[in-house]
Amino acid sequence: MPPSSQTAAADLVERLRSGDTRALARAISLVENDATGAVDVLSACFPHTGRALRIGITGSPGAGKSTLVDKLARAWRGASVSVGIIAVDPSSAFTGGAILGDRIRMQERIGDDGLYVRSMATRGALGGLAGATADVAQVIEASGKDIVLIETVGVGQDEIDIVKLADITVVVLVPGMGDDVQTIKAGVMEIADIFVINKADREGADRVEREIRAMQSLAGGHAARITPIVKTIATTGDGLDELLAAIEEMKHWLAQEGRLEARRTAYWRERIEQMVQRALLKEARSHGLSTEEIAGHAERVAAGDEDPYRLAPKLVDRIFNGSRS
Amino acid sequence: MPPSSQTAAADLVERLRSGDTRALARAISLVENDATGAVDVLSACFPHTGRALRIGITGSPGAGKSTLVDKLARAWRGASVSVGIIAVDPSSAFTGGAILGDRIRMQERIGDDGLYVRSMATRGALGGLAGATADVAQVIEASGKDIVLIETVGVGQDEIDIVKLADITVVVLVPGMGDDVQTIKAGVMEIADIFVINKADREGADRVEREIRAMQSLAGGHAARITPIVKTIATTGDGLDELLAAIEEMKHWLAQEGRLEARRTAYWRERIEQMVQRALLKEARSHGLSTEEIAGHAERVAAGDEDPYRLAPKLVDRIFNGSRS
Repeated sequence: MPPSSQTAAADLVERLRSGDTRALARAISLVENDATGAVDVLSACFPHTGRALRIGITGSPGAGKSTLVDKLARAWRGASVSVGIIAVDPSSAFTGGAILGDRIRMQERIGDDGLYVRSMATRGALGGLAGATADVAQVIEASGKDIVLIETVGVGQDEIDIVKLADITVVVLVPGMGDDVQTIKAGVMEIADIFVINKADREGADRVEREIRAMQSLAGGHAARITPIVKTIATTGDGLDELLAAIEEMKHWLAQEGRLEARRTAYWRERIEQMVQRALLKEARSHGLSTEEIAGHAERVAAGDEDPYRLAPKLVDRIFNGSRS
Repeated sequence: MPPSSQTAAADLVERLRSGDTRALARAISLVENDATGAVDVLSACFPHTGRALRIGITGSPGAGKSTLVDKLARAWRGASVSVGIIAVDPSSAFTGGAILGDRIRMQERIGDDGLYVRSMATRGALGGLAGATADVAQVIEASGKDIVLIETVGVGQDEIDIVKLADITVVVLVPGMGDDVQTIKAGVMEIADIFVINKADREGADRVEREIRAMQSLAGGHAARITPIVKTIATTGDGLDELLAAIEEMKHWLAQEGRLEARRTAYWRERIEQMVQRALLKEARSHGLSTEEIAGHAERVAAGDEDPYRLAPKLVDRIFNGSRS
């Protein structure tokens, strides 16, 4: 970490904090790509984070999450609350970024510097999309947004990992997509602080509600609070006030008995562990565990000539103790 | 690794290789739970692996994968090919394991010791479901199965990681579920060796086929072979022969020009790296990086009192160099 990189980072963060959107975009790209200086930018952002409310929104594709997010953002902007939105779409690298296009149009239409929208696709091997999203959220938060909204497209483990960085998680379901609730993964049901049944004018909305309650009781009932279920029609704005109220109520609930701190501590525990794992592997590389060596082992394992289960401990032993076993 | 554990492992593996299903189930549970002795079991299994064909089947929930897998298994058994099936269902821990129940019934109905079926739900923090599935596949393979079929329930990053251990990946789509192809994640489209459009008598099957081809050309056309698209109706068995032929053809393609070895080497490269990462963290723990210490840091980070981005390198430096910075 040369001081020059730290100075450059401090400079960039100062600019993005003063409202320079291009500086913000540049800082985000730096951390998203895990480029040189990314750690310095994140470190310079850190003192300016922790005050925003982070809201995660997840749910089945086609559930109307984007429309809901747009409506929420408009409502908050109407109340002079500044909003950053991260739309995480692992498929957009493939589909050509349709969602990104929509969001850019939305931002232009509103023409409002209290709103910042960013789409993200993937980050490679070592980092992982969840880590990249967390880093980007830090930068957007440092730019002074009151609310950071993280929207994910699917309902898998990757989405669960992503919304873990949220203080409040909203899970959006929709009637008439067959066995929605049944196919929603365990972890998604468990992280929900608020359920939204969108397109609630469709047949089956009440059934979805009953299914949620049934699955909750099946999962065992030691819940500290009853997860509210809000019915919305995002396109018309029906139910939006109720959703805003549910978020507000959750925020107050979190503010009591150190719940927000406990939640964030639990998040950081996992995140720090990941960061240490990454740093360990980096250090192992600098201690001579080269990509080429691993490739050589992989070839021998694939040919059946080397036992992989004895290999890892041997390699690690060598890295730590310097012996060439 | 005390010799007694190695002897016990060798004994267990010998028994499962002689057709003892209870020994097989016990060995699987050991590696699935990453219990003491798991490494010894895997190590004892390793010399007996590498000969089976590993087939991964993934696709949207409700696409009819289970029915397809059942039909494939019956066809192979009819030709005296032994089959192991791993049904990976991250949601079953929550839904009470409906899929597991189905499969147990299926196995009973067939009453056939050339068929072994195992359902898996989740494995905790350090290991990950993909790693656990890979380990279980090794054990089932060591029991002498000709084909190991890995079926996953969803279409997210976790499923992609799971089917990476397959030699051949089949992606199952179905018409009339809205924007299926659009919402299938990038990585899933890219790992497909064979596409199946199941429930092909439904309206829209041709549209799904066109969409697959369109997405493939969008993704850039340096494909070494054209991915076949097979239309099936799993419930009636329509198209099953075509699917079996496509798998057979893919197997022959893999046998040429060292493609299978290259694929398996690529897989092991990633897997060895994961194993090293796990072993590194374990070693770091034995060098004094305790869960309590990380929890303490997490608390300070959540309170804004400690910069997490400077923390990880500092911790790793201490672990490697013994300094108490």
